[in-house]
Amino acid sequence: MKKMIIASTSTIYGGQYLGYLLPELIHFFKSVNEILFIPYARPGGIAIDDYTFKAQEAFSKLGKQLSGIHEFEDPRNAICNADAIFTGGGNTFLLVKTLHDLDLMNVLSDSIKSGTPYLGTSAGSNITGPSMQTTNDMPIVYPPSFTTLNCIPYQINPHYVDPDPNSKHQGETRETRIKEYHTLNDSPVVGLREGSWLEVIGEKIVLKGDLKARIFRKDEPTIEIESGTFL
Amino acid sequence: MKKMIIASTSTIYGGQYLGYLLPELIHFFKSVNEILFIPYARPGGIAIDDYTFKAQEAFSKLGKQLSGIHEFEDPRNAICNADAIFTGGGNTFLLVKTLHDLDLMNVLSDSIKSGTPYLGTSAGSNITGPSMQTTNDMPIVYPPSFTTLNCIPYQINPHYVDPDPNSKHQGETRETRIKEYHTLNDSPVVGLREGSWLEVIGEKIVLKGDLKARIFRKDEPTIEIESGTFL
Repeated sequence: MKKMIIASTSTIYGGQYLGYLLPELIHFFKSVNEILFIPYARPGGIAIDDYTFKAQEAFSKLGKQLSGIHEFEDPRNAICNADAIFTGGGNTFLLVKTLHDLDLMNVLSDSIKSGTPYLGTSAGSNITGPSMQTTNDMPIVYPPSFTTLNCIPYQINPHYVDPDPNSKHQGETRETRIKEYHTLNDSPVVGLREGSWLEVIGEKIVLKGDLKARIFRKDEPTIEIESGTFL
Repeated sequence: MKKMIIASTSTIYGGQYLGYLLPELIHFFKSVNEILFIPYARPGGIAIDDYTFKAQEAFSKLGKQLSGIHEFEDPRNAICNADAIFTGGGNTFLLVKTLHDLDLMNVLSDSIKSGTPYLGTSAGSNITGPSMQTTNDMPIVYPPSFTTLNCIPYQINPHYVDPDPNSKHQGETRETRIKEYHTLNDSPVVGLREGSWLEVIGEKIVLKGDLKARIFRKDEPTIEIESGTFL
């Protein structure tokens, strides 16, 4: 049975890394001793060892061990044998390219579908749907494909932001971008504001956190859903 | 000799489509009767006929004819025979995919390099450098390659915005994204604010408009350049 936390962001304004999620993570990882960390998204270009250390620090507060996938000789085996998996945020193009290049996308998907608890933040959440096509990131590398884990039937748009009514900027709003996605694609999109997450238990998906989320469906009006709503 | 206008945006706040650029375009297109329009970026998913009509309206103020490339039986011939070319903004992934799928990227590049005057706005500017890898757009389609026209030795980041010091949003700033680009790529990047454009005459590239622009080079401090500066 799938068990996932799909979070908009690792960090909310003024908070510490994963800080706002810790109460949820205590519960989510309660029967897990060691977590496998996938650091490939490298936010700001951080080295994977440094990124892994940052995640270790956060999980040490929960009394959990955490190891970077790059520390294992065979990353496919590391995924197959993991008690639980956390994919951190950063650049989604880099994350997806690395997962495809190392032939890890399918094994990671299978592992989640067979019940290995999975936490994703930002880019790590972007990859949980059918494709990475609703990322906000810059295409700093060319992945061999945009397909991703396909563990939920929704596209994730993390760090969702509402249009600023005072903005004079003419670049597309987030909503415009997602509507452009729907001119050429069909999957529904969840705009997850920072501080929101989806909890997935089997086929049930529920919105958690203090905020509403925004659901975009092709050719339908956009709706807001309350925390606690099942998708 | 190359003759290009590479504009951050088609429209500035409160203005009309191409309005702020019209005085420049009168001069730039003075010996041109008819302009070939490339509408493939389809902002907001607009139909290519509607987008072409919008561009026709703007150019009719200059007394110029404009035709969409999709109106020609052979788009490669249309590019080869064009007096001048304008590529409008929208989604850069869609623009680049379409140009590659129709095998137009090389012929467009050759045409510009041989002296056909070229105007790009937003996505149409993004493609003038070596790659589309500094676009801000959402990857709504998968292009067969991120390589673009390579008519200037700079990457363009259009609609450049400075970090908002009051923002509580944790998504990456534009500057962070461009610095992530430079962790894995070498080409310098021009952050063009809305209302700025580059004028290219042969190998000379000059910043125009009222605003400064931001130049990012790998492993070097970011600098601001004044309007009138040659790159």
